[in-house]
Amino acid sequence: MAFQFPVRIYWEDTDAGGIVFYANYLKFFERARTEWLRSLGIEQQALKSEVGGMFVVSETSLKYHRPAQLDNLLTITAELVEAGRATLTLRQQALIEVPSLAPQLLAEGMIRIGWVDSNTLKPGRIPATILKALKP
Amino acid sequence: MAFQFPVRIYWEDTDAGGIVFYANYLKFFERARTEWLRSLGIEQQALKSEVGGMFVVSETSLKYHRPAQLDNLLTITAELVEAGRATLTLRQQALIEVPSLAPQLLAEGMIRIGWVDSNTLKPGRIPATILKALKP
Amino acid sequence: MAFQFPVRIYWEDTDAGGIVFYANYLKFFERARTEWLRSLGIEQQALKSEVGGMFVVSETSLKYHRPAQLDNLLTITAELVEAGRATLTLRQQALIEVPSLAPQLLAEGMIRIGWVDSNTLKPGRIPATILKALKP
Amino acid sequence: MAFQFPVRIYWEDTDAGGIVFYANYLKFFERARTEWLRSLGIEQQALKSEVGGMFVVSETSLKYHRPAQLDNLLTITAELVEAGRATLTLRQQALIEVPSLAPQLLAEGMIRIGWVDSNTLKPGRIPATILKALKP
Repeated sequence: MAFQFPVRIYWEDTDAGGIVFYANYLKFFERARTEWLRSLGIEQQALKSEVGGMFVVSETSLKYHRPAQLDNLLTITAELVEAGRATLTLRQQALIEVPSLAPQLLAEGMIRIGWVDSNTLKPGRIPATILKALKP
Repeated sequence: MAFQFPVRIYWEDTDAGGIVFYANYLKFFERARTEWLRSLGIEQQALKSEVGGMFVVSETSLKYHRPAQLDNLLTITAELVEAGRATLTLRQQALIEVPSLAPQLLAEGMIRIGWVDSNTLKPGRIPATILKALKP
Repeated sequence: MAFQFPVRIYWEDTDAGGIVFYANYLKFFERARTEWLRSLGIEQQALKSEVGGMFVVSETSLKYHRPAQLDNLLTITAELVEAGRATLTLRQQALIEVPSLAPQLLAEGMIRIGWVDSNTLKPGRIPATILKALKP
Repeated sequence: MAFQFPVRIYWEDTDAGGIVFYANYLKFFERARTEWLRSLGIEQQALKSEVGGMFVVSETSLKYHRPAQLDNLLTITAELVEAGRATLTLRQQALIEVPSLAPQLLAEGMIRIGWVDSNTLKPGRIPATILKALKP
């Protein structure tokens, strides 16, 4: 089952169309990925200072189905679908609860992240301790 | 006592200085004001569609004392210091817990918000029901 | 040939990795689309108030190849690859000039935008005057 | 006379109130400060890597008078009002041209920036070469 994280919509997330600015779903997805990693014991600031590496996003593919609005409370999911030596691929969704209906899908997509050296930004292998933590 | 709301720092909040981008404290302060209003039964999207009015920020005055970093968990406060017919003034702080020390003050400031008609954007009096909800 | 628009990188665009936050390429791409539309005589605020409709992004697919940094000057392209009755599809790139080399590709992607009614947010046909303006 | 820099308003800058999100004036002001420094021969990425220091914002005080909207073209000013050993104070404004009227003031404020070591983030004296470049 996918990891779930709640995200509340504030003024900062909306645009003059009266809805959530689509680029912000990438932020919501990243918050959920960060909390998913944290739930596995992985803190990114610590990785950066102790291991000297970090994840960077290499590919994003999103579809936006329905708009969200100010004050909405979304559920953001994160699910690991592939773990390679240098990259991870996640499937993520943004959902909203609707009274007496199934949760509605607002946006969904695929995010690929790769491991790089924090200083040189050169790609490298994901540390074994991280890959191990990802395995259920 | 001031209303308190937790804010976690994500990549989106940081800049190339390795710290939280100062303009984002305005976002954190607004999230806390929004949750403070919600705790009093006031939802802004509902106000906009039902009452036809909204709060807009008219003045902000902030001091930035210490930087926050990725993964930090902040406490944001919101305290009403003045409620006029057309404007509210709040004092707000961003704090961080430090092991075996008192919480450290990262940023603090004063925010003034005024009531406007959602369509014309002209200033007006804050609805009586809102002013009443603000009184403890 | 693709429409071109310059984008300078400021602190606001970067993150603690020392590079441009990937979600911001969606903003850069949108600035270029907006200026491309403007170059064809189409202003979106005017559309919203006069025609009662607006474009919303329905799909984004991006690859991030190389990082950009503070002070970099990027060239963002926008090229219409498909114009349907209700949606437009654009190919967009972010490039950077490198002395004595060909411009380097930083990020690229496909953006699909659809026409909706500004009030109901329901999809509709792109106004004929707009489709006509898009034809070279 | 104050340094001037044009800023166009895009979707990313607006919120569901239909106007520019107030926190974004801090971004516009910073773009103008960055270009003001660049006009004096000072590049911040170069400072960071070569001198090992950077400016951080320590205080911001803004008043928001009139709202701006999508597609508006603003003029942002930056004027140095005080140059101390460790901090600079600037006065900045956001203006908009209105046909057959004087430019209208949208927002204005005072920004204080201080010099810090890029690694330790500890305050220090502004390098003499920078202070010299600031003197007209």
